[in-house]
Amino acid sequence: MDEAISELELSRISRAEFEERLARTRAAAADRGLAGLLVVGRSFYDRPGNLAYLTNHFPPFPTMADLGGWQGMGHGFLVLPAAGDPILVVDGRAYREDLVAVQDVRLDNNLPRAVASVVSEKELGTIGLVGDDILPLSMYRSLMDRLPDVEWALASDIVEEQRAIKSPAEQHMLRRAADVAAVGLRAALDTISYGVRENEVNAAGTAAAMAAGADFVRYLRVHSGPWSAWGSRWPQASEREMAKGDLVALDIIGAVKGYGFDVLRTTIVGSDTLPEQREMCEAVVRALSAVLGHARAGVTVGDMVRAGLGVMEQAGYGEHMARFMGHGIGLETVEAPLLVPDSDVELQPGMVLCVEPGIFIRGWAGCSIEEEVIITDGDPEVIVGLSRRLWA
Amino acid sequence: MDEAISELELSRISRAEFEERLARTRAAAADRGLAGLLVVGRSFYDRPGNLAYLTNHFPPFPTMADLGGWQGMGHGFLVLPAAGDPILVVDGRAYREDLVAVQDVRLDNNLPRAVASVVSEKELGTIGLVGDDILPLSMYRSLMDRLPDVEWALASDIVEEQRAIKSPAEQHMLRRAADVAAVGLRAALDTISYGVRENEVNAAGTAAAMAAGADFVRYLRVHSGPWSAWGSRWPQASEREMAKGDLVALDIIGAVKGYGFDVLRTTIVGSDTLPEQREMCEAVVRALSAVLGHARAGVTVGDMVRAGLGVMEQAGYGEHMARFMGHGIGLETVEAPLLVPDSDVELQPGMVLCVEPGIFIRGWAGCSIEEEVIITDGDPEVIVGLSRRLWA
Repeated sequence: MDEAISELELSRISRAEFEERLARTRAAAADRGLAGLLVVGRSFYDRPGNLAYLTNHFPPFPTMADLGGWQGMGHGFLVLPAAGDPILVVDGRAYREDLVAVQDVRLDNNLPRAVASVVSEKELGTIGLVGDDILPLSMYRSLMDRLPDVEWALASDIVEEQRAIKSPAEQHMLRRAADVAAVGLRAALDTISYGVRENEVNAAGTAAAMAAGADFVRYLRVHSGPWSAWGSRWPQASEREMAKGDLVALDIIGAVKGYGFDVLRTTIVGSDTLPEQREMCEAVVRALSAVLGHARAGVTVGDMVRAGLGVMEQAGYGEHMARFMGHGIGLETVEAPLLVPDSDVELQPGMVLCVEPGIFIRGWAGCSIEEEVIITDGDPEVIVGLSRRLWA
Repeated sequence: MDEAISELELSRISRAEFEERLARTRAAAADRGLAGLLVVGRSFYDRPGNLAYLTNHFPPFPTMADLGGWQGMGHGFLVLPAAGDPILVVDGRAYREDLVAVQDVRLDNNLPRAVASVVSEKELGTIGLVGDDILPLSMYRSLMDRLPDVEWALASDIVEEQRAIKSPAEQHMLRRAADVAAVGLRAALDTISYGVRENEVNAAGTAAAMAAGADFVRYLRVHSGPWSAWGSRWPQASEREMAKGDLVALDIIGAVKGYGFDVLRTTIVGSDTLPEQREMCEAVVRALSAVLGHARAGVTVGDMVRAGLGVMEQAGYGEHMARFMGHGIGLETVEAPLLVPDSDVELQPGMVLCVEPGIFIRGWAGCSIEEEVIITDGDPEVIVGLSRRLWA
């Protein structure tokens, strides 16, 4: 690594913590009789989670089709023998030697070829695959062809279970990321006025988050007027000019030093909030409070979610409320657990959740508010410092 | 679709053009004896290409792990019978009815389940898979389990070959996207000064591109000083403060109304360009001119690329030049053809290429310049309106 650039220490996760993660993962693989694991990761802006958790490598290249002898660009692989040193296989011309937590790194723009070569070298028999939900079929077949004697087993849970509980250092990173989200949302909120376009609001919020240290802002959804009832839309912001009285949903999603943020607020253009707008938005605030009141270790996700749904149902929004109420967050935006009413997952200290109750009345308007919270044995720690009520 | 929002026509590609694409694709499938095609697409910011080409649907949701009964979120599927109407399977709560070019659309957060149901309903026997390079192994297995009697064949080339040649309407969209890239780069360039952080430059450029109509800016790489020698790095911009005399690489990547832009410039902080910096940068300018001089229908990609490499080699940069010199661009950032010296792909009118020669001297500095050009029978049409020489 060049002296001139080595001062850029980007992560607060210590080398010792990476060593612990690798040791736990190796032990779990050995317990299952696996000779090793193959861990897949995808571009930093999308699905780097399992790979980044074990290596601190975030594939910088965008994913692309297999072209001209290059295969798997935008991915990265960790070969982790149950007994032996880990090997990281990455694309591109260079990687962050100053950051990556693995010593043995191979560079190749044909990733399955390089992975197969490493697996052969290590003489691994049965390999647990971590990331069958992102390994493309073409790469899997290429690996199978090159490694006819290897047996494959599914093993994503070995890493994903560890990722569900955030260490103190990870909680610190997630607080910092939430701070950046708040900076972005505040800048976006400051821009909102009638006649302003959705994409101008997006520009202001995105810029503020980037200048405050975001690695990327994957999107800052700005959905105004009837679009506030959608929840997800392509594109993230349009040329629509906001009008007085429009509700506006602002959802900022990105990461800081690898750790995600996802915060949503709903506001109104101007100060003439209609009674029916206020009623809907206040029901969402109350639902959020009810959910957070149940967000503590030992409670099931289902019980917590139903507490919020009950509030919105009682307020008469049963037909229009979203039954999906959020998700975990960490090295990826959407992680386990999914906050849905039929989940029997038990909350545990160290889980970090995005809680986002919402009411969406198609053709008219919607309101949703999203907090990020850390689960503890007592009250949850809300890590977003931004008012929930952004209407007059 | 709600009246209030239907005015947002976001694409210049006509319904008739989508019908032509579908008809061509159906005919090619039938020619191969396929009962139909299954076309996979991924989130708008990443790999929507084949799906968007045939449907104008851009999956708005980020990709996520399979959780709580949801599978394949962030993807979309087109089931296209060789004889019969297309069916689009999408995730989320809603889709852009005003934009999508397919009438029959199914919403389901378990995508393989919904796809299997459609395929069973249509009684398709042998299906050509378009997108095995992005279909996750878990979804493929889920489809196989649900459809034991279906035979699968690989058929990505049926759509990708069509996508390589851009129609006049697509060329129009790509020119417009390149204009937005130039707006973003100009704003970034205006911010560059000593003491300014890379991520402040990124913020200014990203904001300008978003306000000018970008759907997203996937990244605006700002790599200063020794980092200018990298080409790709996580994260896209850091807290590094630029110093007088630093070379700075600026690479803006995103899309406008679905069509991509990818433009790169190298500049210097201040006006005291060192002779060895100027010499390197001028060699890149000459290499770019040589490549563009060969960029015309009938020439092979390899001949074109080697013309540029020859210039840099002769200038003494043989050891430090990148042999990769760019790629096609369209509904995805990186499309066929890949511009590498051993390619025998023949250039054709309507190809749109990102041409990016570069010299990268590790530990010191690098220079690369990227133009977007449309291949014609005569001289290529350069569609980026931005000076190549941004040093004193």
